[in-house]
Amino acid sequence: MKVEVECASCILHRGYLQIIGATKDPSVQFKAMSALTDLLAKEFNPSATPAILGTKRDRIVKKIASVSDPYAKRKRMSNQKALEILPQVEGLILNEKTAKSRFRTACLCSIVGNTMEFDIPGHTFNYDDIGRLIKRAENDLVIDEISQIFNLSKKTKKIMFLADNAGEIVFDTLLVRELKKLGANVIIGVKGGPVLNDATMEDARYVGMNKVADDIVTTGTDAVGLIPEECSEEFLTLYNSSDMIIAKGMGHVETLTEFNLISPHALLLRTKCNPVANFFKVKRDKNVAKLMP
Amino acid sequence: MKVEVECASCILHRGYLQIIGATKDPSVQFKAMSALTDLLAKEFNPSATPAILGTKRDRIVKKIASVSDPYAKRKRMSNQKALEILPQVEGLILNEKTAKSRFRTACLCSIVGNTMEFDIPGHTFNYDDIGRLIKRAENDLVIDEISQIFNLSKKTKKIMFLADNAGEIVFDTLLVRELKKLGANVIIGVKGGPVLNDATMEDARYVGMNKVADDIVTTGTDAVGLIPEECSEEFLTLYNSSDMIIAKGMGHVETLTEFNLISPHALLLRTKCNPVANFFKVKRDKNVAKLMP
Repeated sequence: MKVEVECASCILHRGYLQIIGATKDPSVQFKAMSALTDLLAKEFNPSATPAILGTKRDRIVKKIASVSDPYAKRKRMSNQKALEILPQVEGLILNEKTAKSRFRTACLCSIVGNTMEFDIPGHTFNYDDIGRLIKRAENDLVIDEISQIFNLSKKTKKIMFLADNAGEIVFDTLLVRELKKLGANVIIGVKGGPVLNDATMEDARYVGMNKVADDIVTTGTDAVGLIPEECSEEFLTLYNSSDMIIAKGMGHVETLTEFNLISPHALLLRTKCNPVANFFKVKRDKNVAKLMP
Repeated sequence: MKVEVECASCILHRGYLQIIGATKDPSVQFKAMSALTDLLAKEFNPSATPAILGTKRDRIVKKIASVSDPYAKRKRMSNQKALEILPQVEGLILNEKTAKSRFRTACLCSIVGNTMEFDIPGHTFNYDDIGRLIKRAENDLVIDEISQIFNLSKKTKKIMFLADNAGEIVFDTLLVRELKKLGANVIIGVKGGPVLNDATMEDARYVGMNKVADDIVTTGTDAVGLIPEECSEEFLTLYNSSDMIIAKGMGHVETLTEFNLISPHALLLRTKCNPVANFFKVKRDKNVAKLMP
């Protein structure tokens, strides 16, 4: 997926928020911001991919502002808050009578979990809203290929589940459990280092994903979404040998849609910005379950 | 006044909104946005003045997107809406019993008028809020030098009143009338060409400022705030020969505070962004009446 003109100020704004969170020294703040304006001047053009610019932005901020994990606190908070309401969300799934309807509800809750992201201009998130968002998850589901994803999952032996955000990954455990019940081997892919509020190995273990999934691996890199050139060989071997991929969130849409997908990829996400919504030709702040290619 | 790091994404965001309002052609949109990222890469540094970058931004957008007046519609709307409620606002002033209290109320209403600005990230404005904002204008007045401004105005023969936005200029007519009653000659300075939603000669005449003030002149340029190097000789002669300046809005704060002020300048504004609020060491979304130097 390519950037839209709107992405420029969003990229800068998220950089700004990370910078001021990382340092109170105006000279360091300006040094980091100058590096970001240079990045945009050099690389912001119609063929750029937002997640790649976002990755470069985050590395610039981490390096110049000397901060290893700008979202550390908010990631912990998201995990804790999501764990608090996990039993209720789990109850919704267990209340369903068939494997298919349990799978559907687990998908919807996992997509609602994807709202847990910060600093996107125009996207507000409040933990108290999760219940309401789950209630209206069916209404907000503007691309609904959950049935096809379910049917494919039943036939699939090896699934790679690419996680997105901390907090969100708590609800993902419920979907992984449903996938396991269908007989698949499920490997979770998390980020190899801190980037935005994306889940890392620490988050996956903290929320108990290791008790549900067959294995957890990292991409081997701190990139937004999936940038194969940056991933470890170990990760790529697992990714390429999977029969099916389930990929959460916008960063995966932005990057995965840039290369020829061979195995089926199920994209589960909330459209939290206009460019991603426009890519799917849907509105912003909606739920998407799309099977590609 | 110098930029803060926060200004970078704001400058870009306001540029983006002007670009998409001006053209639906993505290639032109990207061309304009690239010129803006170049501008920031070259000129965004701790010694930059926000209004000067804003002026350059707006000229880039007007040129590349071939739009002469991006805010034309909203300026007309602001004038009309403000004229609709002018009688009520006028009533508040006429209800006051002394020249001093009428002056005070007229200042407050003129400052509230300064909320009529668009596209500033985090600043929302709704015409229906004007009444409420006037009611709480005293509470929001965090820098109050209205008495000093009143006392100075009484002694002053020649006042130049630098207007800011369309719509706002409707309420300014009431303050100009009070200034006239104190015996001063009042000349209004408006922008010499369209920039943001700043009032031009057309706006000043449309709202009847010509019936209240002694004269209306333009700065001779389409710059945000006041950039003397760009102003016409005619304007500068009048500006320099005034005994006192009343300057509305943030653009004037950003530019006027950059040079040695000789005559007294009364700054009347709403702090609609953090950097301007920080300059005055007050909070955002507050009213300021400050005499400088």
